[in-house]
Amino acid sequence: MSTDQVNFFLNVLATIAFASTGVLAATQKRVDFISAIILGVITAVGGGTIRDLILDVPVFWSKDLYYVRVAILSSVITFVAITYFTKPLLYKLILYIDGFGAAMVGMLGAYKAIELDFAWPLGPLILGVITAIGGGAIRDVVSNRPTLLMTDDIYAEPVIVGCIGMLALMHFFPHMESEAIIIGMLIAFLFRSAAIYWNLKFPDWFSRQQR
Amino acid sequence: MSTDQVNFFLNVLATIAFASTGVLAATQKRVDFISAIILGVITAVGGGTIRDLILDVPVFWSKDLYYVRVAILSSVITFVAITYFTKPLLYKLILYIDGFGAAMVGMLGAYKAIELDFAWPLGPLILGVITAIGGGAIRDVVSNRPTLLMTDDIYAEPVIVGCIGMLALMHFFPHMESEAIIIGMLIAFLFRSAAIYWNLKFPDWFSRQQR
Amino acid sequence: MSTDQVNFFLNVLATIAFASTGVLAATQKRVDFISAIILGVITAVGGGTIRDLILDVPVFWSKDLYYVRVAILSSVITFVAITYFTKPLLYKLILYIDGFGAAMVGMLGAYKAIELDFAWPLGPLILGVITAIGGGAIRDVVSNRPTLLMTDDIYAEPVIVGCIGMLALMHFFPHMESEAIIIGMLIAFLFRSAAIYWNLKFPDWFSRQQR
Repeated sequence: MSTDQVNFFLNVLATIAFASTGVLAATQKRVDFISAIILGVITAVGGGTIRDLILDVPVFWSKDLYYVRVAILSSVITFVAITYFTKPLLYKLILYIDGFGAAMVGMLGAYKAIELDFAWPLGPLILGVITAIGGGAIRDVVSNRPTLLMTDDIYAEPVIVGCIGMLALMHFFPHMESEAIIIGMLIAFLFRSAAIYWNLKFPDWFSRQQR
Repeated sequence: MSTDQVNFFLNVLATIAFASTGVLAATQKRVDFISAIILGVITAVGGGTIRDLILDVPVFWSKDLYYVRVAILSSVITFVAITYFTKPLLYKLILYIDGFGAAMVGMLGAYKAIELDFAWPLGPLILGVITAIGGGAIRDVVSNRPTLLMTDDIYAEPVIVGCIGMLALMHFFPHMESEAIIIGMLIAFLFRSAAIYWNLKFPDWFSRQQR
Repeated sequence: MSTDQVNFFLNVLATIAFASTGVLAATQKRVDFISAIILGVITAVGGGTIRDLILDVPVFWSKDLYYVRVAILSSVITFVAITYFTKPLLYKLILYIDGFGAAMVGMLGAYKAIELDFAWPLGPLILGVITAIGGGAIRDVVSNRPTLLMTDDIYAEPVIVGCIGMLALMHFFPHMESEAIIIGMLIAFLFRSAAIYWNLKFPDWFSRQQR
C-alpha cells in the first residue's frame, strides 16, 4: 500500500471508532435512533470541524463526504447492534481503536496547522488537542454528560504528550516530519493504551478542589 | 405580494416564533430579563450563525440587522407578557409557528448550501438541520437544560425528512427548485404539526439505553 | 508609557485575571491539573476566538501567542497556589481585576467590530458581549457548571451598559473614539465593581419563572 492508502485506511478506522464510541457514550442515557446517529457523527467530525474553522480553511468533510458516510454507517451499526458492542471484549477493542484514532487525528490535526504555518508551536498543539477531543466534548455537552475534562479519564493527556513529542522532534530534526508524526502517534497511543489497560487514574495530588 | 416579500414576511414570522419559544424555554428556570433576551436572540439567530461559519460566508445578520432587531423585540414582549404566552391557546399557536419556522429555515438553510455548491447531498442536509435546531441547542446548553436530542420530542426528525424529500426532488427534477423547497417545507411542517397535535413520541423500539 | 504599551499592559492584566478566575471556577469541582489549565486558557481566549470567527478574521492568538503563554502561566500558578487564591483578600482583588478585564475586552471587542465596519450598531454590541463573556460561558458549559446567564450574578449587564454608552458617544462625537472607549470601560467597570462591592443581585421583578 502507498502512504496515501495507509493514511486513508487509518483515517477511516479512526472515524469508525469515533462514531462508535460516540453512540456508546450517548446510549448511556436513553436516546432515540436519530439523536444517536447525530451524536455519533458529531463525535467523529466535530473536532476536525472546529479545527478547520479556527484555521479558516474549508471544513474537511465538505470536500470529501466519505468520512461523514462512514460515520453514519458506523453509528447505525453500533446503535442497532448495541448489545454486541457493550460486550467486554468488543468494547475494550473499540476503546483501543478509539485511543489510536485520538492519537492519529491529534497528530494529523497538529500537522495541518504546521503546514499552514499556524502559530508555531502552541497553535499546532492546541489544534491537535481540539481535533482529538473536540468532537467528544461537543457530544458530551449536547447530550448533557460530564465532559472528559471533568472526569478522571486520562484521554487528553496522551494526545498532549504525543503532540509535544512530535513538535520537539520536528524542531530538532526538521527533515524528519513523517518520522516525528509516527513517533508522536505511538507515544500518544501507548500512553492511552496503558491508561486503558491498567485503568490508570490521576493521582490525588494532581487534582484540586476548593473547600 | 412578490416572492421576495413573501420570503421576507415568512422569515420575520420564523424569527418571532424562534425568539419567543427561546424565551419560553429559558423561563422554565428562573432567569433575569437580560439573560432571557440573550437566550431569545441566540435561539433565533444561533443556527444560521453556525451554518454561515461552516459555509465560510459572512454571518447572515451582519448584512441585515433586521432579524436581530425582530428577535430582541419578540423576546422582550414574550418576557414581559409571559403570563399570556403560557396560556394553552397562544402557547400551542406559537408551537405551530415555531414548527413552521424550523421547517422553513431548515429548507432555506439547506438551499443556501446548495447554492454555494457545498458537499452535495449530505452537506445541505447537515446544514439544514444545524440551521433549524442549532439555535435551540445552544440555548439549551447555555441555560443548562436537556437539549432536544436527549428528549422524546420529535423536532429534528421532521426537518431531516423534509430536507431529504427536498434534496430527492431537486435531484430528479433539477429545474423545479422552488417547488422542491415548498414541498420540503410542507413535509417538515406537517410532520411536526402531527407530532404536536397528537403529542407523538418515539416508540420504545426506536430508543436504546445500555443496561 | 505609550498608548500601545498601556494597551498591551492592560490586555496582559486582563488575560491573567481571566485565566485565574477560570481556574478558580473550575476548581469548585474536583479537576485535574491538565483540565484546569485547559479551562483557564479557554476562559482567557475563548470569547475573543468566537468573536474573530464571526468577524471572519484570523483568531487573535494565532498572530501573537503571548496571550496564550500568559494564560497558561497564570493558570498554572493559580492551580498550584490555589489555597492563596481562595483567600478572601486576593480573591476579591482578582474579582475586581476580572471585572476590569471584562470591561476592557468588551469595549475593545466591540471596537474591533467597528473598525471592520461590522453591522453597526448591534453587531459591535453583540461581539463586545461575546468577547467579554464567551470564554467564561464555554468554560462553564464544558465543566458542567451553570453559566452566568443562569445565575443572579450581574456580569454581562455592565458590559452591555458600557458598550451602549460607548456606541452612543461614538455616534454623537465621531471624532472622540478613544475617549468613548475609555468612558465605556469606566461605566462597565464601575457598574461591575458596585455589583461586587455591595453584592448586588437582580431585584425580583427583573426575573421570571413560569409556574
